[in-house]
Amino acid sequence: MARKFNYPTWSALSLDRGNSMPLHVQVFDQIRQAIVQGRISKSSRLPPTRQLAAELAVSRNTIVQVYERLLAEGYVSGRVGAGTYIASVLPEERHPPKEALPTAPPSPAATGSVSRRAQAVRPLRLPSERSGSLDLSPTVPALDQLPFDQFAKVSAHYWRSAPAADLGYGGSQGLPDLRRQIASYLGEAHGVPCLAEQVLVVSGTTQGFMLAAHVLTDHGDQVIVEDPGYVTRHAALIGAGAELVHVPIDLDGLDSSRFDGYAPGAKMVIASPTNQFPFGSTMPLERRLSLLQWAQTRDAWVIEYDFNNAFHFGGRPLPPLAALDRSGRVVYIGNFNRSISPALNIAYAIVPPGLIDAFARAHQIFSFHASVPTQGVVADFMESGQLAAHIRRMGSRYRERAHLLVHCLKTLAGSAFELSTTGAGLHLSAVAKTPIDDLAVSQTLLQHRIDVPAMSSYCMTDPVRTGFVFGFGNTPAERIAPAIRLFSDAVSTHSEAPIRDRAKGAVSA
Amino acid sequence: MARKFNYPTWSALSLDRGNSMPLHVQVFDQIRQAIVQGRISKSSRLPPTRQLAAELAVSRNTIVQVYERLLAEGYVSGRVGAGTYIASVLPEERHPPKEALPTAPPSPAATGSVSRRAQAVRPLRLPSERSGSLDLSPTVPALDQLPFDQFAKVSAHYWRSAPAADLGYGGSQGLPDLRRQIASYLGEAHGVPCLAEQVLVVSGTTQGFMLAAHVLTDHGDQVIVEDPGYVTRHAALIGAGAELVHVPIDLDGLDSSRFDGYAPGAKMVIASPTNQFPFGSTMPLERRLSLLQWAQTRDAWVIEYDFNNAFHFGGRPLPPLAALDRSGRVVYIGNFNRSISPALNIAYAIVPPGLIDAFARAHQIFSFHASVPTQGVVADFMESGQLAAHIRRMGSRYRERAHLLVHCLKTLAGSAFELSTTGAGLHLSAVAKTPIDDLAVSQTLLQHRIDVPAMSSYCMTDPVRTGFVFGFGNTPAERIAPAIRLFSDAVSTHSEAPIRDRAKGAVSA
Repeated sequence: MARKFNYPTWSALSLDRGNSMPLHVQVFDQIRQAIVQGRISKSSRLPPTRQLAAELAVSRNTIVQVYERLLAEGYVSGRVGAGTYIASVLPEERHPPKEALPTAPPSPAATGSVSRRAQAVRPLRLPSERSGSLDLSPTVPALDQLPFDQFAKVSAHYWRSAPAADLGYGGSQGLPDLRRQIASYLGEAHGVPCLAEQVLVVSGTTQGFMLAAHVLTDHGDQVIVEDPGYVTRHAALIGAGAELVHVPIDLDGLDSSRFDGYAPGAKMVIASPTNQFPFGSTMPLERRLSLLQWAQTRDAWVIEYDFNNAFHFGGRPLPPLAALDRSGRVVYIGNFNRSISPALNIAYAIVPPGLIDAFARAHQIFSFHASVPTQGVVADFMESGQLAAHIRRMGSRYRERAHLLVHCLKTLAGSAFELSTTGAGLHLSAVAKTPIDDLAVSQTLLQHRIDVPAMSSYCMTDPVRTGFVFGFGNTPAERIAPAIRLFSDAVSTHSEAPIRDRAKGAVSA
Repeated sequence: MARKFNYPTWSALSLDRGNSMPLHVQVFDQIRQAIVQGRISKSSRLPPTRQLAAELAVSRNTIVQVYERLLAEGYVSGRVGAGTYIASVLPEERHPPKEALPTAPPSPAATGSVSRRAQAVRPLRLPSERSGSLDLSPTVPALDQLPFDQFAKVSAHYWRSAPAADLGYGGSQGLPDLRRQIASYLGEAHGVPCLAEQVLVVSGTTQGFMLAAHVLTDHGDQVIVEDPGYVTRHAALIGAGAELVHVPIDLDGLDSSRFDGYAPGAKMVIASPTNQFPFGSTMPLERRLSLLQWAQTRDAWVIEYDFNNAFHFGGRPLPPLAALDRSGRVVYIGNFNRSISPALNIAYAIVPPGLIDAFARAHQIFSFHASVPTQGVVADFMESGQLAAHIRRMGSRYRERAHLLVHCLKTLAGSAFELSTTGAGLHLSAVAKTPIDDLAVSQTLLQHRIDVPAMSSYCMTDPVRTGFVFGFGNTPAERIAPAIRLFSDAVSTHSEAPIRDRAKGAVSA
């Protein structure tokens, strides 16, 4: 028979053994309440575990468990066994008052204390966030033409049929179905000799870039990028410690014979031979082959960034570097941003067989997997032939829009610019024959909800080219002519303005 | 009247002006065909643009455009104007033969040439990929209990109602609806004083870690992590150039008073006070407050990793560091891995107001946005109260399973181990009182499709603790007892085995 002890409150605890709630939880909850409601004063001491156990006729373990938790959650302090007292300040008292929440966030820390890399990207101007609703945006496909109903059906079907076990952590390389679909798409449509085993599904192109940098470069390695180029995308590699070397390009893209003049020890190059951004041009076969030659002889890597491999207007596209590569130096990165929508943020890397293990492992560690349901939906969308149909349907529409845009540009502003060919992609470029304050023009047009980025904003080296990048993907035919009219007005307004002090590398897309 | 020239093939080109296909495309296609079919011999030269233009009665620009494209796509070589000849090797001839594809991928590159960081993570053992179908897996919720039909409905509704403009590039911080939901969830459920403006939606926890490292640390900065801890998650920071410092913890978690002994200059610490992995323990209030004090006085940052903020069994959870922080030193990272499913790979970072701009910018540059449709589905799932209902429903189920697991362990193997409390989370730990070859036991159990990771595999510093981590989230009640029986058998089989040469830091979850 247990000795009565002199803590009235404690003996008042009542347990319901029929209750599904474990005893230690019941005891904990009641003691906690008693403390919070002040029925147990803050100065008071917990009774010894043995005594309370006897008093409540439960195992001593149960009480020890309860005390450990009171301690863990801050209701008591001290050490179990060696005198445990009720905490002078209870967890509840630490909570900020609810009504204060919206008005009292933590005081801001000095932003000067952010990393050098975070400060390095501060001058970069970011894409206009609502580019989905601006005319002529260069990187957006026809969003209003997305097969919304088909996606509704496909996603509902995914959730109704997905095996529960697949909804844990995704595989290290992505959903096998999707990898098979991507492999056969690239093989058939682009002659890229690729097995599903070489496909790595990632959460967007940037993650693909980062992954390649993590696996193939170390901090301080030089990485060659195109200038003008996709400045914000390239900047991601700064996060991985890369030293970006901007090499000027012409309409034929990167010329590897010039690399030694810029970065003799370069470990990696990012090239977009299929459809350069911002130029919209294509790299000829000779340059492609010499680029591969360079990589092989220098033991360097080529990241082939093919952000548009869906739309080519007439003729057969040139084989991608990945299709020409015979020495396993090319990592091919593609996505569904143009063929479906950037919103899915699904991209893929095609990795040489000798590197796939290193990439798969690095993906698990450094980037983890992409949304599994989204992967399942895209896989189904491809497997059922709906993607191919969508690409065919949009291809002819985009051809019309491209043709119309070129026509309008030539009519309204042709003489002042050199237009890039529109053999592929959803954008084209117009380089000013005589320099112009393209940033000012671009700003003016934004006020009319027209998104025509300045060519100069993609240039990091001198001489800075000025001009503009036009997208025809997300702009209905009837809105193209009015937009270009506003463009040519803006151009004539600004063409006399001074163009000094242009912020180099201030990026607008 | 144009002068006739002597290239019969060229004059045979016929244009259809009624055709919607632009003239330059028609001309290009016909010339390309003639070249590919050999009707124009490889030795031959393109006629001057002016002449062909006159012959076909099209503008000279059209022909220039065609020639530039023939050049760009590798059908001709030389320079436009200065004598352009048909290429001796056509793009078609560069394509690898189709039947060769599956058998002739690029020759593998030496994997020795991968980066030092890629080699550094090679020894880490990765989670068993199909953990979704293994019993007792510590990090997986009850996948078979997911509300599949509700998700089918919600996703279908998303696609039927999403505004097209939202399906471009996602906003730099994530879907506003989702950010509002997350902010109010954290405010109500955890007393985290957070505004939607402070919420950043990311593609998974690893991306959140990387982002924090990109913004708050530079290459070579010391980052303190828990030992034992989430070794693979921590390793991600190596990709960002962090020097990981593993600080031993007890069941109270990190003790900041010991930091100077390990990393006096540490710039960042990753702590999981709510529910430590692998221990499954909780950090008491005193340690939380002193950790915050440390960060404030050292101008350092705390990344609070709260991988389970949904399930607490009885009692009120302690306030997270983010709720106690008054100096804006805490970045709180949470996800839906336990409350919904890891497959969604949606996580969020709560950032101090003074840092949110730097984080949002860095997110755009270094990591980009998370799948917008997935964000929309989760937002709807929260807004409609379905998430709260799911958490309530699962909470009681998990409490049962936790209770049963503890009971079985105490009965079958209790004496040999110290069990962690099960106040929160979906896992608990059992530290062996006398060292045991836990890796061997873990391996044996995998053959029975039971995933009980070895405690030692989460230890990077001596003395290495041995023991096991048990999950009760994804294991139906009726399978718990049999699994623990197999576990105790395996333990007794191996308890005499030698435990030297255990690969330190070989991670199994």
